[in-house]
Amino acid sequence: MNGYPIDHVAIVVADLEAALSLYAGTLGFREIYRETIDDQGVEAVGLQAGDSVIELLRPLDPGSPIARFRGDAATKLHHTAFRVENILRELDRLKAAGVRLIDEAPRPGAHGNTIAFLHPKATGGVLIELCQPRKTGE
Amino acid sequence: MNGYPIDHVAIVVADLEAALSLYAGTLGFREIYRETIDDQGVEAVGLQAGDSVIELLRPLDPGSPIARFRGDAATKLHHTAFRVENILRELDRLKAAGVRLIDEAPRPGAHGNTIAFLHPKATGGVLIELCQPRKTGE
Repeated sequence: MNGYPIDHVAIVVADLEAALSLYAGTLGFREIYRETIDDQGVEAVGLQAGDSVIELLRPLDPGSPIARFRGDAATKLHHTAFRVENILRELDRLKAAGVRLIDEAPRPGAHGNTIAFLHPKATGGVLIELCQPRKTGE
Repeated sequence: MNGYPIDHVAIVVADLEAALSLYAGTLGFREIYRETIDDQGVEAVGLQAGDSVIELLRPLDPGSPIARFRGDAATKLHHTAFRVENILRELDRLKAAGVRLIDEAPRPGAHGNTIAFLHPKATGGVLIELCQPRKTGE
């Protein structure tokens, strides 16, 4: 048992192009997707980081919780997503263990993934996402 | 070019055992090291997460910057470390690109790694570490 791999680390940013100047420009990460996730109210850019992804999230609505989370910081670490093979099974397991969830049922994430957030009250405040990647070929 | 892989995601925690109850107990991550990093003033526990590590950091001094960073949160995302093969070369490259660094020269990290932090003023506030793993067999 090697633990859940890290699917992505998400960083909320005020200015996508400024953030990309660092992550893609200076650090050399390659952009693999850019899309609007209506469900989360963000524009998301995914950057390949080995087998994981650095995901830059720009809130679309300055009054949304994710925008307020950023506060005055230009960029801020937002959540860590762990990759699971079967998100329904994992959610059932966590529910049975008494873990409070934001998403009792999975919902669509970026890049065709299926995701669910644990409730920060269950995690000491850190946002943790479970993420089941779309199947290759879909 | 697949980008730097994520070596670890570090989470500062008030209470290591409470955090381990979630990460090792409920989520099932396996502890692979536990040590005091005097240089950073923390007790660190590394948990295997695929090819990466979730690193829980408990500040030893409640007045230290990392303890103040945690503030009132029980746990808080602290930094992301990218894995590099040759940290001296990467630091030279970043210096040449004008990137401000906390560590102009690498220093010892957890688990025999050699590390250096970029300056948060160069990264929009997010803490980024470069991390060269110790060579296998050392």
